[in-house]
Amino acid sequence: MKKLINRPQDVVREELEGIAAAHPDLVRVHFDPNYIVRVDAPVQGKVGLVSGGGSGHEPMHGGFVGIGMLDAACPGEVFTSPTPDQMHEATRAVNGGAGVVHIVKNYTGDVMNFEMAAELARSEGIDVESVLIDDDVAVQDSLYTAGRRGVGATVLAEKIGGAAAEEGRSLKEVADVCRKVDDNARSMGMALTSCTVPAAGKPTFELGPDEIEIGIGIHGEPGRERRKIAPAKEIVEMLATPIVEDLPFKSGDAVLAFVNSMGGTPLIELYIVFNELKKFLDGRGIRIARNLIGPYITSLEMQGCSITLLRLDDDLIRLWDAPVKTAALRWGL
Amino acid sequence: MKKLINRPQDVVREELEGIAAAHPDLVRVHFDPNYIVRVDAPVQGKVGLVSGGGSGHEPMHGGFVGIGMLDAACPGEVFTSPTPDQMHEATRAVNGGAGVVHIVKNYTGDVMNFEMAAELARSEGIDVESVLIDDDVAVQDSLYTAGRRGVGATVLAEKIGGAAAEEGRSLKEVADVCRKVDDNARSMGMALTSCTVPAAGKPTFELGPDEIEIGIGIHGEPGRERRKIAPAKEIVEMLATPIVEDLPFKSGDAVLAFVNSMGGTPLIELYIVFNELKKFLDGRGIRIARNLIGPYITSLEMQGCSITLLRLDDDLIRLWDAPVKTAALRWGL
Repeated sequence: MKKLINRPQDVVREELEGIAAAHPDLVRVHFDPNYIVRVDAPVQGKVGLVSGGGSGHEPMHGGFVGIGMLDAACPGEVFTSPTPDQMHEATRAVNGGAGVVHIVKNYTGDVMNFEMAAELARSEGIDVESVLIDDDVAVQDSLYTAGRRGVGATVLAEKIGGAAAEEGRSLKEVADVCRKVDDNARSMGMALTSCTVPAAGKPTFELGPDEIEIGIGIHGEPGRERRKIAPAKEIVEMLATPIVEDLPFKSGDAVLAFVNSMGGTPLIELYIVFNELKKFLDGRGIRIARNLIGPYITSLEMQGCSITLLRLDDDLIRLWDAPVKTAALRWGL
Repeated sequence: MKKLINRPQDVVREELEGIAAAHPDLVRVHFDPNYIVRVDAPVQGKVGLVSGGGSGHEPMHGGFVGIGMLDAACPGEVFTSPTPDQMHEATRAVNGGAGVVHIVKNYTGDVMNFEMAAELARSEGIDVESVLIDDDVAVQDSLYTAGRRGVGATVLAEKIGGAAAEEGRSLKEVADVCRKVDDNARSMGMALTSCTVPAAGKPTFELGPDEIEIGIGIHGEPGRERRKIAPAKEIVEMLATPIVEDLPFKSGDAVLAFVNSMGGTPLIELYIVFNELKKFLDGRGIRIARNLIGPYITSLEMQGCSITLLRLDDDLIRLWDAPVKTAALRWGL
């Protein structure tokens, strides 16, 4: 295993120390239990947004804490759910009296632990609404999931929900706009290579030198099909066809197209994928009104990409465009 | 070779099509000759900034075209200098009457071609100042370079020079502030893995399963030493010690610390590197006043990182903080 780390057991703590050292203007990092919180939390009268999940998907979620997005993120160990304790303390830390939304990716551990944290917070009089993200069309049920996995839509829900909270919407309204993102978003990913969890020290799965996996999960969970490498145009068709047909996205729809790196795939390839996706959607009369291209929900150093499409309306566009100031997404501020 | 591409010979053109499709609000892409130009170029009365170099280092340079940074970028084929023709036409396209600065990384082909382009432009009455970037302390002379290679300081010179141009400084002043960045910046990189140029189809060099290369160039040029993988703390010492001792950076200095991914190394590792760098600099009384952490000057999918330190003064800090709106760097707008 070749990685820029010290001891595998120190990876998450040292990463958090690095985040704390790099972004004191944006966030504070709390240790034991670990969570990253907006520097000015709690913001009085504003709905708080908390998300979290296993580490190894950076910048998600810690890179999305700041003005106009998350109020707190709870990082677990690599590919391991954070504990209810982390979520509960983060919820208390961001409660400004208007309630707290939990954005939960649909993995069994995350769902169970966020439920316990919500119960604990409610027992102390904090209003909590939970939003489940389950946008991955690749498979029904998976290694750590009943139902569909939560992937790229999480990033979009955090941005859009964060903007809704920032403009003063109520707990129910913020939760509902996050649910609207999940309802109108579909995703699918693929891997060119595996990745290595530091504590495991060996690749999560094996792919042959000319093999790829279509429909991969962000922890390397099996997808739909293992096949030979193909041109980008064909790979985009394999990802975008089930996405478009599932919602379905229709001619005349305006979408946000999110082309995401799994971590090890560089921008030069993402732009080629985006170019193919644009042609694919043009052919179906679907217009890309907004886009996001880069590594935002990753799987350590895995090479590959995912595509997320979100059907937009005027309110979602306005919330997407609203100012945001986080380590990983920033505009207007 | 497993990459998200179509035919290797189409990689750069299709990437540029993707950039054009993704960022019409920021840039226009001109084909034959290829260059990416700020959407509102030429900006009358403003000094224009042009850079360029081989593709494969994305987001550099095309991702840095926009308000407050570059006016144009000339992408060559992967790891291949752009032609004088590209640079000449880009220079004409951004000339708003106040002259044009060429930011040139110190590689023989780039230097020669930018010189020819500058001569062509001058013969048409366009004032051109060339700034050479040569911040890599790893080796003196290299595979494509006489003297030191230009690496991470390029990104910083483009940001800071772009801000100086945006606030209306003269041609000489903009060129001088870019030179000041180069004079006060030092860099060094390392690789965990090689990378594969699409047209070559095989890795540029070979590294054993537990080998790393210290002092690597951004095209895989040999560095100082090939050795066994070590903890991040030791790797940071191997990179930061020659950087600090070269300028030298001294106790009491304020610096911008830029921790860069070579393309395939994810953020989780970069923050661990940043954490070690912070401790290393703390130990020498050097204060990190600003930072940049992410993949900004890459070598395709190479795993590894580079560190760049820039000694700051009040003017450089103000120019760094100034608003910027490009595909890859954005704040305040």
